[in-house]
Amino acid sequence: MRWMLPTTEVPEAWFNVVPHLPTSLQPPLHPATREPVGPQDLAPLFPMALIGQEVSAEPWIDIPGPVLDVLRLWRPTPLVRARRLEQALDTPARIYFKDESVSPAGSHKPNTAVPQAFYNREAGVRRLATETGAGQWGSALAFACALYGLECKVYMVRASYEQKPYRRVMMETWGSSVVPSPVDRPDHPGSLGSAISDAVRDAVGREDTHYSLGSVLNHVLLHQTVIGQEAKVQLQLAGEERPDLVIGCCGGGSNLGGLALPFVPDPKVALLAVEPSSCPTLTAGRFEYDFGDTAGMTPLLAMYTLGHDFVPPPIHAGGLRYHGDAPIISALVHSGRMQAVAHPQTAVFEAAVQFARVQGTIPAPETAHAIKATIDAAVAAREAGEPRVILFGYSGHGLLDLQAYADHLAGRLADD
Amino acid sequence: MRWMLPTTEVPEAWFNVVPHLPTSLQPPLHPATREPVGPQDLAPLFPMALIGQEVSAEPWIDIPGPVLDVLRLWRPTPLVRARRLEQALDTPARIYFKDESVSPAGSHKPNTAVPQAFYNREAGVRRLATETGAGQWGSALAFACALYGLECKVYMVRASYEQKPYRRVMMETWGSSVVPSPVDRPDHPGSLGSAISDAVRDAVGREDTHYSLGSVLNHVLLHQTVIGQEAKVQLQLAGEERPDLVIGCCGGGSNLGGLALPFVPDPKVALLAVEPSSCPTLTAGRFEYDFGDTAGMTPLLAMYTLGHDFVPPPIHAGGLRYHGDAPIISALVHSGRMQAVAHPQTAVFEAAVQFARVQGTIPAPETAHAIKATIDAAVAAREAGEPRVILFGYSGHGLLDLQAYADHLAGRLADD
Repeated sequence: MRWMLPTTEVPEAWFNVVPHLPTSLQPPLHPATREPVGPQDLAPLFPMALIGQEVSAEPWIDIPGPVLDVLRLWRPTPLVRARRLEQALDTPARIYFKDESVSPAGSHKPNTAVPQAFYNREAGVRRLATETGAGQWGSALAFACALYGLECKVYMVRASYEQKPYRRVMMETWGSSVVPSPVDRPDHPGSLGSAISDAVRDAVGREDTHYSLGSVLNHVLLHQTVIGQEAKVQLQLAGEERPDLVIGCCGGGSNLGGLALPFVPDPKVALLAVEPSSCPTLTAGRFEYDFGDTAGMTPLLAMYTLGHDFVPPPIHAGGLRYHGDAPIISALVHSGRMQAVAHPQTAVFEAAVQFARVQGTIPAPETAHAIKATIDAAVAAREAGEPRVILFGYSGHGLLDLQAYADHLAGRLADD
Repeated sequence: MRWMLPTTEVPEAWFNVVPHLPTSLQPPLHPATREPVGPQDLAPLFPMALIGQEVSAEPWIDIPGPVLDVLRLWRPTPLVRARRLEQALDTPARIYFKDESVSPAGSHKPNTAVPQAFYNREAGVRRLATETGAGQWGSALAFACALYGLECKVYMVRASYEQKPYRRVMMETWGSSVVPSPVDRPDHPGSLGSAISDAVRDAVGREDTHYSLGSVLNHVLLHQTVIGQEAKVQLQLAGEERPDLVIGCCGGGSNLGGLALPFVPDPKVALLAVEPSSCPTLTAGRFEYDFGDTAGMTPLLAMYTLGHDFVPPPIHAGGLRYHGDAPIISALVHSGRMQAVAHPQTAVFEAAVQFARVQGTIPAPETAHAIKATIDAAVAAREAGEPRVILFGYSGHGLLDLQAYADHLAGRLADD
């Protein structure tokens, strides 16, 4: 069963979790002075509208009409009850997922790419620079820039640029320019942290260019809250008062935040972040100030981190290979409002294949982390004999990650 | 704007166009005797339920409940108004498309794979054999067999098996076995016609195995009519009495038939088939009896054909590289009820890129043929100053065809 909403039911405001957080957020610090950054420090990178959203304590922020017009190309996304998975697990749990894979770029990322492109164009910016790892974020921003007529320059981690050409082709089809990063070290495989450095350097160096980030920051998580808001309405249509447990995979935190933040005010809803064992930021990192990038050009953020020079192993869930985490997610975990768990990639791909064979769709490796945790929770519900309601985020499809499935099926995946 | 229907609105019967055809269909002939084939001739390949549908003249055929349950995993599919494309073309035409790319396999093919797997399982068959070119049909049948617990063996055209591994990985993820064809000539690149021969040989040789075909036959087109039936309802919701023109790409004819056949009884609706210039079956072929495969093992069908030994050039729209056409489509074209047009692939990819940059999604190369014809029709409407209503079939996404886009963007595509 799927619950659809008409295009008129896309939420018209973003939900700001900041007033609902159990502890107040610590401010970002300037990388040189270690003093709290002000709006003028961020102005070379972001338009004022986004800077305002980054620090806003307003409970709701209106979504501009032209942004809604574009979101309605694929939103509201379906809420699906995974009945065949329930049957396969013989669980009394009721399992729902919110399917963000239906966007043109195939993930939740366009939810923030679209407003970011919009606000930049409104501010007179003609060109955006960004980084991308495996390409989910870069392709989302390329899509958004195509629709708003902006130039887009994507610094893509060199290893992905060379080994995974198809998301690069997507970006080029939408008209973006894609180059391998680090730009000044053609023999280096690159990392997300160093690609951020390249993109920030580009944006700071050109008058007509701003920088755009696909996760971590408050305004990015804010834009993603359309996911959880829609899911709340759809769960009501499905006859559920609330989910007992909300599960999302967590790299920088935007997918998890988008689904989970609207449920934060309800203490009866448990929240679970799922990360890879090989990049265990929330489960094994330290809660402290750290840079968002490798070169130390970004502000310092108060977050769980493995250290800004941490280089995760090359697991297939490229979107979860980040040394830090969103300050909002970090605060929720640090306060105990949200739990976190880590899983190794072979167990994650076993869950993904099981899902594909019973539900029919092939999930992204990142999404498969949430599926692994969902299956564990559904089995626990069976053992407890409790009809728990589980909602997980289907953040993206795996159609551009099929090499990972080939490696898994051939027994070639490592758990490092 | 998109028009969605609830899952309860999946049509509960297939529409049989046979009673509405302007001329009666000529019967298939036995390849050896050249006499009309009877049910017993087909029994080694198909279950009786499908043989009955192949020759039925009933106007409606009920869809079994267990088939509906699976179709509802992704159906009804969206009807989308392509407003941004209309604006880009400055046309008074209203352009709608029916989006079949949302299925788990990414195309319309599961609409028939699911009932075919169901009827075979009901008949006690444990294993299905089929052929696939680029892999759209093979992946659809692999998906359906996974859900019904059937074994599936796919003979994949060797050139695609080696050059396009990702749809093969999809099939393997769903648990199917995939081998390159022709099986007995490891140095041969293969063709769809010879892969059909391999699959038929497999099915004839094993008691537990039937054969499954993804296009051409009457029962396949019948299963696809859920597409056009849903589109009719959705057009009403959109305030349109009827489309003036229905456009679909045409290889074997199942996508086009699925969308167009329910409109055949309304003489005010024009129907247009779009095929590649390099495989111009309807526009340059002969209407006569010919074999469906290369080896001459299948019945002879009355259809437009380029000859069963015709080998089309290796264009990227693999699903349109077939020497023949469905007898139903052939009869409609032969009688004048349906028109046909052919386009070269560079013009087709130009249309695809234009579509991706204004509407946001990247279409399959096959689908791009319909988009090219739609753009031409919308421009003609502008020149005539007429607000025509155009409906086209968005048969699949292009996410596993990105190499074709890379070749196009690099200027490497040939028009043969």
